[in-house]
Amino acid sequence: MRRLIAVDWGSTSLRGALLDADSRVLGEISVPAGILTVAAGDFAAVFEQHFGAWMSQPGALALVCGMAGSRQGWREAPYCACPAGFADIASRLLWIEPDRIALVPGLSCEENGVPDVMRGEETQVFGALDLLGLADAQLVLPGTHSKWVQVRAGKIVGLRTFMTGELYGLLRTHSILARTLPPTDGELDVDAFERGLAHARDSASLLHAAFSARTLSLFERLPAASMPSYLSGLVIGEELRAQTLAASGLPLVLIGAPALTARYRLALAAQGLAAQCVGTEAGWRGLDAIARQLSRRLS
Amino acid sequence: MRRLIAVDWGSTSLRGALLDADSRVLGEISVPAGILTVAAGDFAAVFEQHFGAWMSQPGALALVCGMAGSRQGWREAPYCACPAGFADIASRLLWIEPDRIALVPGLSCEENGVPDVMRGEETQVFGALDLLGLADAQLVLPGTHSKWVQVRAGKIVGLRTFMTGELYGLLRTHSILARTLPPTDGELDVDAFERGLAHARDSASLLHAAFSARTLSLFERLPAASMPSYLSGLVIGEELRAQTLAASGLPLVLIGAPALTARYRLALAAQGLAAQCVGTEAGWRGLDAIARQLSRRLS
Repeated sequence: MRRLIAVDWGSTSLRGALLDADSRVLGEISVPAGILTVAAGDFAAVFEQHFGAWMSQPGALALVCGMAGSRQGWREAPYCACPAGFADIASRLLWIEPDRIALVPGLSCEENGVPDVMRGEETQVFGALDLLGLADAQLVLPGTHSKWVQVRAGKIVGLRTFMTGELYGLLRTHSILARTLPPTDGELDVDAFERGLAHARDSASLLHAAFSARTLSLFERLPAASMPSYLSGLVIGEELRAQTLAASGLPLVLIGAPALTARYRLALAAQGLAAQCVGTEAGWRGLDAIARQLSRRLS
Repeated sequence: MRRLIAVDWGSTSLRGALLDADSRVLGEISVPAGILTVAAGDFAAVFEQHFGAWMSQPGALALVCGMAGSRQGWREAPYCACPAGFADIASRLLWIEPDRIALVPGLSCEENGVPDVMRGEETQVFGALDLLGLADAQLVLPGTHSKWVQVRAGKIVGLRTFMTGELYGLLRTHSILARTLPPTDGELDVDAFERGLAHARDSASLLHAAFSARTLSLFERLPAASMPSYLSGLVIGEELRAQTLAASGLPLVLIGAPALTARYRLALAAQGLAAQCVGTEAGWRGLDAIARQLSRRLS
């Protein structure tokens, strides 16, 4: 009986799931053992530590996506160049142990002579397309580095990274704005969030819009407790301002944890746009699809 | 004989000059005693420590612009609202000691329901206009928080802050990009700087453009030593992308230290725009103009 150990090994976290032959998730693991915490040469041992029990079953197959395939990871799996479809990544696995452990390659995409890249998100994208039965879509994977991925006829044709989550953290923690922000973010203040969205949309650049968090505080027009929500609206609003969504006509798909995709849904709704949401199960689905293709090939 | 002690007391530095009745600079002081280093209640003592000798002459007058007039400063001098001309700030001095020490108020400006502010730059703007004999201009004061100031018929009618220098520092020191940057900036690499300018201009947002510093490093298309210049080009290019310069038709004036204004000249030249440059003497000239007006009023 086929058992898939689906793994997303990112920069800061290591997540895994055990799937049976019917694609059912039998168990999940999430530990803060991202690749940045693992010394070169220790990847096999850390993998064994967390997945050894699952891997001890006969016929166990582990597919690992994410930063584990980067230069700082387990071993470097060269990027697939866009346009790239599911078959491209599924056929370019980097085997750590033959028929037992493989790394899924990331994707690279060139625009105006500048490359962009992702590792792990490509697997979530193909999983989400599979789940939703879509072959054309604009997918958004919000996060520290948000990825905007365009899919046409089942192939990823465009990819852009936005450093939204990271900029939020930098402004929140290290900038002059930090002085007037409370120590913790608290619950989302929807009014303040939408005010931030609107101001980012009206501004030509976040370099200018961000200063409003300072002046609104200075003139006591927004309480400190609402500032994190306002700032979140500013950075997400900036990310959306940079897109040409209505023009593309593609169905919009958000992939990620509900707390974050909910903010993007609000932001898109403010522009009259609707999006379908898929959770992190998209990644397991993508890895499961690769496993199914492998077993068809082997059988 | 009139003696002016012209002071720009900012967040991180305290600068002063002694001017005679013919507006000649007789001496200058620059110390890292910005207002953030001074405890509430200690401002008079710190001022006396650095300017006591100059102030001991009969008829000495000190005019202080900058953050000393902020809530965290010596005493709060309320902002003048735009549109505001030279006469507005000159007539709203906040006297610490009658006819002896005064704070120059800053300016505030409202756009789309959001205020913007400056303290100190307004004095440099009026000084630069006086030096250049201009009544209409677009002035740029680059820095941690760059100020873009529009002047029509001698009045400041518009003001926008861009957190350019601060964002550069955040990205350079605290972001993922810091990993591939050398420990010090080194000399400006003009080619890399202009490549950054061009990429910012082609991108819709710095949130996206900044990631190129990561991928160009990853694909070894730009050496680490050139990265600080490239990143500088990205943030200054973003600041310029957000302007509508050619359309305004106003003469462009850059105010600041030559090392920084030189970068903005390069950036503007890349768009076929020329700018006049004024150094930090603009601030002394602005304070001197206020002093001259006061002495006319008193005589």
